[in-house]
Amino acid sequence: MIHVTSPYLPSMKKYIKYVEGIYERKWLTNDGPLVKELTARLEAQLGVNNLLLVSSGTMALQIAFRVKNLRNKHVVTTPFTFQATYSALEWQGSHASFCDIDTDTWNMDPYVLEQQLQAGKQVDCVVPVHTFGNSCAVEAFNELQQRYKFDIIYDAAHALTTLDDKNKSILTYGDISCFSLHATKLFHTVEGGALVFKNDSELETARKMINFGLDGEFASEAGINGKLSEFHAAMGLSVLDDLDLILSQRKDQIATYKSLLHNSVNYQAVIVGHDICPSYMPILLPNEHSVLNIINKLAKLNIFPRRYFYPAINKSPYYQKICPNISMPVAENVSSRILCLPLFPGLNKQAISQISNIITHEVKSTLRG
Amino acid sequence: MIHVTSPYLPSMKKYIKYVEGIYERKWLTNDGPLVKELTARLEAQLGVNNLLLVSSGTMALQIAFRVKNLRNKHVVTTPFTFQATYSALEWQGSHASFCDIDTDTWNMDPYVLEQQLQAGKQVDCVVPVHTFGNSCAVEAFNELQQRYKFDIIYDAAHALTTLDDKNKSILTYGDISCFSLHATKLFHTVEGGALVFKNDSELETARKMINFGLDGEFASEAGINGKLSEFHAAMGLSVLDDLDLILSQRKDQIATYKSLLHNSVNYQAVIVGHDICPSYMPILLPNEHSVLNIINKLAKLNIFPRRYFYPAINKSPYYQKICPNISMPVAENVSSRILCLPLFPGLNKQAISQISNIITHEVKSTLRG
Repeated sequence: MIHVTSPYLPSMKKYIKYVEGIYERKWLTNDGPLVKELTARLEAQLGVNNLLLVSSGTMALQIAFRVKNLRNKHVVTTPFTFQATYSALEWQGSHASFCDIDTDTWNMDPYVLEQQLQAGKQVDCVVPVHTFGNSCAVEAFNELQQRYKFDIIYDAAHALTTLDDKNKSILTYGDISCFSLHATKLFHTVEGGALVFKNDSELETARKMINFGLDGEFASEAGINGKLSEFHAAMGLSVLDDLDLILSQRKDQIATYKSLLHNSVNYQAVIVGHDICPSYMPILLPNEHSVLNIINKLAKLNIFPRRYFYPAINKSPYYQKICPNISMPVAENVSSRILCLPLFPGLNKQAISQISNIITHEVKSTLRG
Repeated sequence: MIHVTSPYLPSMKKYIKYVEGIYERKWLTNDGPLVKELTARLEAQLGVNNLLLVSSGTMALQIAFRVKNLRNKHVVTTPFTFQATYSALEWQGSHASFCDIDTDTWNMDPYVLEQQLQAGKQVDCVVPVHTFGNSCAVEAFNELQQRYKFDIIYDAAHALTTLDDKNKSILTYGDISCFSLHATKLFHTVEGGALVFKNDSELETARKMINFGLDGEFASEAGINGKLSEFHAAMGLSVLDDLDLILSQRKDQIATYKSLLHNSVNYQAVIVGHDICPSYMPILLPNEHSVLNIINKLAKLNIFPRRYFYPAINKSPYYQKICPNISMPVAENVSSRILCLPLFPGLNKQAISQISNIITHEVKSTLRG
């Protein structure tokens, strides 16, 4: 059975060594030494400051939205993303709306956003997603931010190691970047997430917020529980030693897929000089029919790629209940034709070859048909 | 160094055995087999149905408030509680107000609530707390609910094993009960919490809600990430084997304290026939001066009891910023005189005796004036 992803498991001996330390210290959670160590190591490895570890990627978004006081504010996000981006805004009581994506990058289209702004739309905050780790048009969003004055919070769930053309972490763009450290991510803490803040004081507010708003003994913020535990931080520290290996394996697998698939499918367009975190292996097929055919054929071999992200958020059953008439033509088109192929450490060349053959064969017959 | 509490650590060998199973299955989180096993064992042990494990006690409250659609609704809670009760309501966008506590039980006073209701106050939901595990006047709240039609969500953070006079779990009262499984609790999953639902369909809604609202592949709710991981569930399973021992040790320690403190301090009044979960050892002192004197004297011995809950929520710096003029005389009085004494497995009789001596001596000299 081959799934779209499989969690990376580091040396168990190493993990247990960390557990022994936790037992010795009797410090199980609440900003413990392993959380501090992981924070420092991640900051150094990623080349960022002001990093805050939290209990999940969605928690990172929730904290960012609260730090920016987005309740009853007007927030624009992308319809081509995982549910959590939209529903974390909904939970925060924001007025969330969508800006369609670019046909080639599959990220929020800054020109469409500009049209919305020029038409007088109220926008207090923009939440673009570095989809599948592919960096957004960060310079265009910066420019719009200066002209129209809004906050930018990047959902960088998949973009842990993405670099711009000056080798600067993509996480340093925007006011806040949020990412996920869930078990299915290439680097993970079982469940976990993190934020990177431009602004020191927002980091300090968030630090209190994830610990019930406590400032010493007293609550100076309305906070909740967003803490990462020592047992989860221990997993992060164990995986971190292997990160370079994980990245190079995944990059090799992506290269193999691309050499075998030739130009039979479309890939995300990448900004020249940017280095994209190898989180996923998404392909765009000619039409939905070919997506479904490929899924069926692979299922017979016990191989399960994923229609990710399908449907576009505005077409999800939940969103249809509350707002049925929103059309996002590009996102709907891309989401109907997208397929994320298996990608994880240990996936062998034979499987990649088998998957690629089925896809190229299907695409050929679709194009002939 | 003796703190008010210390996390219970089960056999490391047992915990590691569970970790080995997680590695074998490669199933690290997302409603895994250990979460299912812990759910079933807790339901059996506590005598409840419809239990849902989540990532924290605060998450349990947040999920309960969302399931009951409390945004913009009028919710009454107690001012004598941990910050999380109030701030989870605030995060949910509810209009939260307070009902003062009973002088003897330190729980929300149903007579005060009745006065508020009789005066025409709009109340959509009531959130009482079984403070320090001490059961609320559940029958009185039931009766008010029938008369005035509102939801009841109990914050049962400390009340894991509390039983009524028919040996029925206190968690079965109200529409939903929420509790905490944080490392400092007598039974814990490092970080964690749970809900017990009266209503099957609300359990099913919540189950989707903690997994991004997903119903199969598609989102039918606006959900977030409230999942308990397998590594945290493994800790719960390891501690659960020792729960009876933990409970009896703590009950013995409380009995020792009470025999040594005689009647020099006040304790919580308990409903006749109810069996209270031994979560804390709270005492009420004659005045704040004696609280501070005792803290100072114990600090010199490296013993650190805790002013828990101090201040009353309406007097916290955060609440003072948004609503400075609310008075809750009973809660303010109790919170100024409360002290929670050290209570955890392994705390020895000598320490209990030392602490009790200092307290009785201080109270005597206070009363002599």
